[in-house]
Amino acid sequence: MPDDSPHGRRTSIIDVAAHAGVSRQTVSNVLHDRRTNVSSDTYDRVLAAIAELGYQPNRAAQNLRTRRSMQIGYHLSGEHLRVVNGFFAQFLHALIRQAARDRYQVVVFTHQDDPLRTFTDLVAQRTIDAFVLSESAVDDPRARLLADRGIPFACMGRLAADLPQQWVDVDNAAGMRDLIDHLVARGHRSFAYAGADGGEYWKTERLDGAVAGLAAHGLRLAGRDVFHGDDAGIRRFARRVLTRTRVPDVIVCGSDAVAAVVVNVAHALGRRVGADVAVTGFDGGAVGMFMEPVLTSVHIPLEEIAHELVQRCRREIETGPTGAPGLILPTRVVEGASAGPVRR
Amino acid sequence: MPDDSPHGRRTSIIDVAAHAGVSRQTVSNVLHDRRTNVSSDTYDRVLAAIAELGYQPNRAAQNLRTRRSMQIGYHLSGEHLRVVNGFFAQFLHALIRQAARDRYQVVVFTHQDDPLRTFTDLVAQRTIDAFVLSESAVDDPRARLLADRGIPFACMGRLAADLPQQWVDVDNAAGMRDLIDHLVARGHRSFAYAGADGGEYWKTERLDGAVAGLAAHGLRLAGRDVFHGDDAGIRRFARRVLTRTRVPDVIVCGSDAVAAVVVNVAHALGRRVGADVAVTGFDGGAVGMFMEPVLTSVHIPLEEIAHELVQRCRREIETGPTGAPGLILPTRVVEGASAGPVRR
Repeated sequence: MPDDSPHGRRTSIIDVAAHAGVSRQTVSNVLHDRRTNVSSDTYDRVLAAIAELGYQPNRAAQNLRTRRSMQIGYHLSGEHLRVVNGFFAQFLHALIRQAARDRYQVVVFTHQDDPLRTFTDLVAQRTIDAFVLSESAVDDPRARLLADRGIPFACMGRLAADLPQQWVDVDNAAGMRDLIDHLVARGHRSFAYAGADGGEYWKTERLDGAVAGLAAHGLRLAGRDVFHGDDAGIRRFARRVLTRTRVPDVIVCGSDAVAAVVVNVAHALGRRVGADVAVTGFDGGAVGMFMEPVLTSVHIPLEEIAHELVQRCRREIETGPTGAPGLILPTRVVEGASAGPVRR
Repeated sequence: MPDDSPHGRRTSIIDVAAHAGVSRQTVSNVLHDRRTNVSSDTYDRVLAAIAELGYQPNRAAQNLRTRRSMQIGYHLSGEHLRVVNGFFAQFLHALIRQAARDRYQVVVFTHQDDPLRTFTDLVAQRTIDAFVLSESAVDDPRARLLADRGIPFACMGRLAADLPQQWVDVDNAAGMRDLIDHLVARGHRSFAYAGADGGEYWKTERLDGAVAGLAAHGLRLAGRDVFHGDDAGIRRFARRVLTRTRVPDVIVCGSDAVAAVVVNVAHALGRRVGADVAVTGFDGGAVGMFMEPVLTSVHIPLEEIAHELVQRCRREIETGPTGAPGLILPTRVVEGASAGPVRR
């Protein structure tokens, strides 16, 4: 029973002090790693007593002293669930794992009507040391609220210049240019582009990257070959493009979720993806598992992003605002079998 | 600035007492809802003072007194992410929402090597009031550990009879029987069954339900028409069944994720799902969104399950072991377009 004293009650700091033959203050110094006040002999003796008695500091009491909860809040909105491509479940998993490495727990919360109200309440309760945001707008009202209140946070996705630059992102345009290079190297020459609707910067950047990547090879996207819309619109666009006399070699998609819709339409029309037409995604997430063939896509390094977000939170919790600039991480092309070569 | 006193420091219980013209003890009685010690006039005056000053009790201090963290832990394992059908992301969302209704937060955690060690550590830290488990084995070692330590928990999925019956589940066999009735009513007469590998009881129950449902209509599943295996095996089975001379009317699948694989194979073979062959799922989760046609499936009521799990946790936190029996909730058939009728 490492968790209990021989007398059946929980081991306390007093037991540890008695066992090590030191004062309570000395045990407290060791627990809070104030080594300068403790000789190295004493330090080791206290650690040994802690180990022998199986002493576990009461986290609530400890947190009250340090005024830290060792908890990071992550806002999971209903929007995340509409994107049912496993991307956010995987991100959450990475975040929890990275936070645990620094002994932080992740409190996941959602909101009813007004997300800002939920944030205000959580800030007032003072149980969260820092917040991680995703699916942010550049001028994100949640980030603005946290910045105004001086609460540490970090964001997956860029933030406006007048907000703390506590964000980690990928270079969407560069990722898409790499993918186009990959596709051109496989012999593809004619392209269409399908993306989800909404004016978010990453959607614009991915299309811009595709256009720039093609231009570098002397190729271009005609206006009628580019489409942004909802699922039904993407289905219609894919059907139109795939039933033309001259079907493009590749339908480049702004995300794996969009690619999944396009692949389904291609299958429904009896086209073999990767043989009759190439289809590519962007996310490199889990959705490709369902798909036959496996999707060629652009991998977003979720584990590294989560690691950086946790480190940024931790530094601000420990030392206050850092004024650090935002961070852009590289993507890489992941090769499936959906990119061809296409036989004509 | 509802969060601060006019003097720039945080509003304290002393400020509230002064504002209401009562003692600190009286404010404390109101905060802890000890109404019998407070006249109703005084009670209202204290509430008014709390509202006017925007007083927010320090949750860490409050939790130290009540010895409750108001946090429920949810164990998200890597297994959940392999099931990339949105089911667990949706369950987590439901759990967070239901917990919030009772002012509980959800701490999501994962483990590195040994899940039991993570549970032991979390229990020792005393920061989690109760645990919610899912993807449980009937004789779940996590549940056994929590039961041994006297920590409240509730589980999505049945538990062994010698464990506390703190579980909520669905009747998989009844759900599958309802689905078979639905399919037979649409004129289907010949069936195949594909499920994921693994000996979990719900997989057995779903097949048993299908067999019993068919028997009630004088129909049966031949041995060669039943398959359990991994993704690659399911692909092979679906290909074999779909390229026979006599293709069955329906391939009934043990989950939406399995159905997604079967639909992909059917599409790859140029079969129209819902017209040439019917395919059904079980989960009624989000995966159907990707699919064309939308999947006919059996809906698992995640929101109600999450509600019941939170209520079970809450009752045990507040009053100790309840000895309540397990709870089985009904499923229902959700009609997509994948169930035919099939034209022959």
